[in-house]
Amino acid sequence: MSIAVIYGSTRENGNTEELTEIAIHGLNVEKIKLRDYSVQPIHDQRHAENGFTPVLDDYDSLVERMMKHDILIFATPVYWYSMSGLMKNFIDRWSQTMRDPKFPDFKEQLGQKKAFVIAVGGDTPHIKGLPLIQQFNYVFQFMGITFEGYVLGTARKPGDIINDQLAFSLATEMNLKLKEV
Amino acid sequence: MSIAVIYGSTRENGNTEELTEIAIHGLNVEKIKLRDYSVQPIHDQRHAENGFTPVLDDYDSLVERMMKHDILIFATPVYWYSMSGLMKNFIDRWSQTMRDPKFPDFKEQLGQKKAFVIAVGGDTPHIKGLPLIQQFNYVFQFMGITFEGYVLGTARKPGDIINDQLAFSLATEMNLKLKEV
Amino acid sequence: MSIAVIYGSTRENGNTEELTEIAIHGLNVEKIKLRDYSVQPIHDQRHAENGFTPVLDDYDSLVERMMKHDILIFATPVYWYSMSGLMKNFIDRWSQTMRDPKFPDFKEQLGQKKAFVIAVGGDTPHIKGLPLIQQFNYVFQFMGITFEGYVLGTARKPGDIINDQLAFSLATEMNLKLKEV
Amino acid sequence: MSIAVIYGSTRENGNTEELTEIAIHGLNVEKIKLRDYSVQPIHDQRHAENGFTPVLDDYDSLVERMMKHDILIFATPVYWYSMSGLMKNFIDRWSQTMRDPKFPDFKEQLGQKKAFVIAVGGDTPHIKGLPLIQQFNYVFQFMGITFEGYVLGTARKPGDIINDQLAFSLATEMNLKLKEV
Repeated sequence: MSIAVIYGSTRENGNTEELTEIAIHGLNVEKIKLRDYSVQPIHDQRHAENGFTPVLDDYDSLVERMMKHDILIFATPVYWYSMSGLMKNFIDRWSQTMRDPKFPDFKEQLGQKKAFVIAVGGDTPHIKGLPLIQQFNYVFQFMGITFEGYVLGTARKPGDIINDQLAFSLATEMNLKLKEV
Repeated sequence: MSIAVIYGSTRENGNTEELTEIAIHGLNVEKIKLRDYSVQPIHDQRHAENGFTPVLDDYDSLVERMMKHDILIFATPVYWYSMSGLMKNFIDRWSQTMRDPKFPDFKEQLGQKKAFVIAVGGDTPHIKGLPLIQQFNYVFQFMGITFEGYVLGTARKPGDIINDQLAFSLATEMNLKLKEV
Repeated sequence: MSIAVIYGSTRENGNTEELTEIAIHGLNVEKIKLRDYSVQPIHDQRHAENGFTPVLDDYDSLVERMMKHDILIFATPVYWYSMSGLMKNFIDRWSQTMRDPKFPDFKEQLGQKKAFVIAVGGDTPHIKGLPLIQQFNYVFQFMGITFEGYVLGTARKPGDIINDQLAFSLATEMNLKLKEV
Repeated sequence: MSIAVIYGSTRENGNTEELTEIAIHGLNVEKIKLRDYSVQPIHDQRHAENGFTPVLDDYDSLVERMMKHDILIFATPVYWYSMSGLMKNFIDRWSQTMRDPKFPDFKEQLGQKKAFVIAVGGDTPHIKGLPLIQQFNYVFQFMGITFEGYVLGTARKPGDIINDQLAFSLATEMNLKLKEV
């Protein structure tokens, strides 16, 4: 099973990435750090006569990289109680890819993948991050992706995540599960 | 009371905008259509030594326009069970503004405003859009903004919203409330 | 189409019942007021060797009455952010009925019904009542029941509901829908 | 710090109780098994002229036992995506106790307590149990109780919980936390 991590964080080595390191320890993963690429917000042309206008950014190449893997880990900071805009833009564009002849089986292929979510925030994410988890669940459900598990970590300042013993324990469990699947 | 509508939709005259027209009928509002401007995703430098690097885009001018009003209507399509990436990027940047000396009382001033949410989606938004409403509630709560009400409308194709009688009724109630507050 | 209302409230003519009157105005409905009957909490014997021990209370007769109808309206006060214990006990017992030879097609028959929810509470139910709506949705989904709509009304003291113009408007819409289905 | 566990399950030694054993391992706790007592559903007389009529059941004595402790663990099976009716009836009655001269500082005293939740269900509780967690959060928030943590375990048949490695890991973390607080 091959693994891709899609990072929505905007800081290098932030808490989200640090927690994710626990989950992927000892595993060979492809890291897709969205902040290093240009991904335009979707322009909804689902119902336009000529469909979507091709966008000249890095999105397609990121999708290609993502699609090569069996397991996807979505690792995002919790910004304002949901995923970062960086990650939202990436996922919004899936609507375009679903209609893109270059990716004829996008939904079918995604539907065979397994997904995990790692989200780290400062304001009681184990409660206020639950709507985010529910949304990821709806996204995965729509695509047919199996939602294998999630960790909500608490951290405010850089390095804070180290104090969230529970998150570390959950990330360690995720690591074990990743080695099994 | 003066009103601004912040639009997260990417299509002109889409279902979200059409439903919003009912809510603002007969009212003088300032329309801020995010798709007409450039708003970069936040680069989280809350904890960087020198704080946030100024960003050369339209964001600050949009905030200035928003802050002049007492009532904010956030009108967004439901993309993948949450607000559009366009709107998410706009809200994410609030974290920067909270630390921006150009907006010294950003949070305090926002905390005196009232907000409404209008969200339109295709996949049972009256259920699957509830996490989005909970997130808006957390955002408003954090800022001290009073959450005055919301409408979740159902529409898939352009113009579909006209079939959602309940959403129209709710938008009409919102219109009455907007005229009262 | 024939309609049953299942009431979880414990006060006669309380806010929940008053709001429900708007929704059922002009319609012939069977009213099942749980407070007038004895419904024991479930004793989970799903996995007991001999299955469930029959319970000598009014539950079975209430189910029989409910099953005669095509449309079910669950009308409950919001107690502590969820349905009343009265109504919870009634729904909990469905697990027993699903294994009761006296009701051989309980799930299949329920799965052909349509349901509405009316819930009235004092503490911002349009936000804090959303988990309750999500739970009803899961219950209906499990059974195959179509979730046709809900109203969350705000009322603290007896008669307060009259001030919730939005709830009245929603209940009126529900009334129209009930007359159509 | 002294600990009470309030059990909402109806089977002896069920999955909920088994998981709770991990969380309380090595700790001295008072176990309050609601199924062993009679707790009537609340009759809402908050607004009755003479207030609540005293109820002749075991509820008051259970509250007295609960109030002696600093930490409360609510351990409930997930029935129909929320707490058992047994536990719901117990919590519903708090509305009565808040107006009962026999418990003059009920809310204030509860507000000094810390709480944990353990909930075990069969139908993807890590997703479909989230509304239940949000409801407990609202209950605790209303009372001023500190919500210290929760575990959602997956189990269908008796003994199944042993296969939920993640739940065991979380219960073990809860045990460590209970020993610290």
